[in-house]
Amino acid sequence: MRLARLGPVGQEVPVLLDGERVLDLRGLTADIDGAFLAADGVARVRAALEAGDLPELPDAAGRRVGAPIARPSAVYCIGQNYAAHAAESGAEPPENMVMFMKSPNTVVGPDDDVVIPPGSTRTDWEVELALVIGTRAARLASPEAARAHVAGFAVANDLSEREWQLALSGGQWSKGKSAPGFCPLGPWLVTPEEIDADDVRLRSSVNGEPRQDSRTSDLIFSLDHIVWELSQYLTLEPGDLVLTGTPEGVALSGRFPYLAAGDVVELTIDGLGTQRQRCVAA
Amino acid sequence: MRLARLGPVGQEVPVLLDGERVLDLRGLTADIDGAFLAADGVARVRAALEAGDLPELPDAAGRRVGAPIARPSAVYCIGQNYAAHAAESGAEPPENMVMFMKSPNTVVGPDDDVVIPPGSTRTDWEVELALVIGTRAARLASPEAARAHVAGFAVANDLSEREWQLALSGGQWSKGKSAPGFCPLGPWLVTPEEIDADDVRLRSSVNGEPRQDSRTSDLIFSLDHIVWELSQYLTLEPGDLVLTGTPEGVALSGRFPYLAAGDVVELTIDGLGTQRQRCVAA
Repeated sequence: MRLARLGPVGQEVPVLLDGERVLDLRGLTADIDGAFLAADGVARVRAALEAGDLPELPDAAGRRVGAPIARPSAVYCIGQNYAAHAAESGAEPPENMVMFMKSPNTVVGPDDDVVIPPGSTRTDWEVELALVIGTRAARLASPEAARAHVAGFAVANDLSEREWQLALSGGQWSKGKSAPGFCPLGPWLVTPEEIDADDVRLRSSVNGEPRQDSRTSDLIFSLDHIVWELSQYLTLEPGDLVLTGTPEGVALSGRFPYLAAGDVVELTIDGLGTQRQRCVAA
Repeated sequence: MRLARLGPVGQEVPVLLDGERVLDLRGLTADIDGAFLAADGVARVRAALEAGDLPELPDAAGRRVGAPIARPSAVYCIGQNYAAHAAESGAEPPENMVMFMKSPNTVVGPDDDVVIPPGSTRTDWEVELALVIGTRAARLASPEAARAHVAGFAVANDLSEREWQLALSGGQWSKGKSAPGFCPLGPWLVTPEEIDADDVRLRSSVNGEPRQDSRTSDLIFSLDHIVWELSQYLTLEPGDLVLTGTPEGVALSGRFPYLAAGDVVELTIDGLGTQRQRCVAA
């Protein structure tokens, strides 16, 4: 199933995309958030779909696409989780999983404009497979126990201001990861049975020119490992967002220019849809 | 004014502490959170107090003390913000302000037990002056504009698992900062006019033996600078928590043992009250 949230910022309506039909979920839930996911929300959507209980949303066409989940309580990011990206960043592949955090208020819709922060000359894209936590996960016994805690997957752009992240940070990356709108998410939350998330192609382009093009099968730390290992150090909450790392092909490599006003960024993961963002000046 | 939240986890009642009296704020707000602070909550409490409109909470004695604010949308932490602590950590004083994040679900009451994570041998304390954001702050024009966005101050313990933070992290600290319960906060949210937050004494002890003992006047980056600089990189939301750094005297220095089950940690900031935590095994 593909879940989405359609409408203006703060007024998104939860929907299910069933082929070409847009089905209104407001009879089941006010929003797609941690409480909904933890209360068997996905199963209830499936049951309502099968029972024919979901009405079509009459005015779906032309609505803004929001992030497919409400603001999470935390956004965890895995760093340098593709060997070739670690190399282009000037680092060895990590021996230990690297985790940093973004501010949850960075999560926006997949096609919202990217605002280049004032003074920024090093705003960079990063296509990533994101996973959304469905049920609380704490000290999981093994990576095999992880997948049952995942509600679904989505495309994310882990936007970064490299000067703030690397040159002005004292080494802690969060400073360059949390500017307003720096986490476009969606268009859809796709439930796990729909895709082989461990081996999908993910791509990005700028102004139609290819940038990143890899597969999640190249991840150093797998999706199950990520959820399991995070759960050893902290408690993952329903609705939390985990960005699993980006492959090579970003501007930090020196091979491509950084983003500027007027650029158009596109990010696609097979089965999870496409984001398209126009860059604008602040 | 001193605001607090009293009661079991998840059922805390918002109160005003007026001398020995405990005044119930539920006639004004369901909770002390970002929405309340942003909607002139502190001013409304003051007006209700002056009008004699606040009833006493009858069963205040013996109630658990919760964190004085509801779960924030983000917890920002400033690292190595006291020169002597940077030195004991093996680092130079930072040229640039260092920011990392803790999971918001780490925020707990000031006297709740500290659970030593399973397998941890390097759980460490850090007394810090915390500030709570009152109104949204984005791209503030100057540090002088910062204080108007601060609702108040509180004591925080920025608990850390040093093995996870430093040895197993690939250099990003959040992994060792986000274990369950790793951010005791309170006992009170104290409004700015009550203390000279830029020059107060902060202390910690373990089993009655002194550990940290410094003043906020030793901060490298001042309170106003912190809020102003963060607002350049991200948007601070009402109810967000900012931990401003810890002074020397933690176990990481090698001068003191790490925390173990049975230890009692006390943290005091003049005017902001005292936390007292018992360490327990997981």
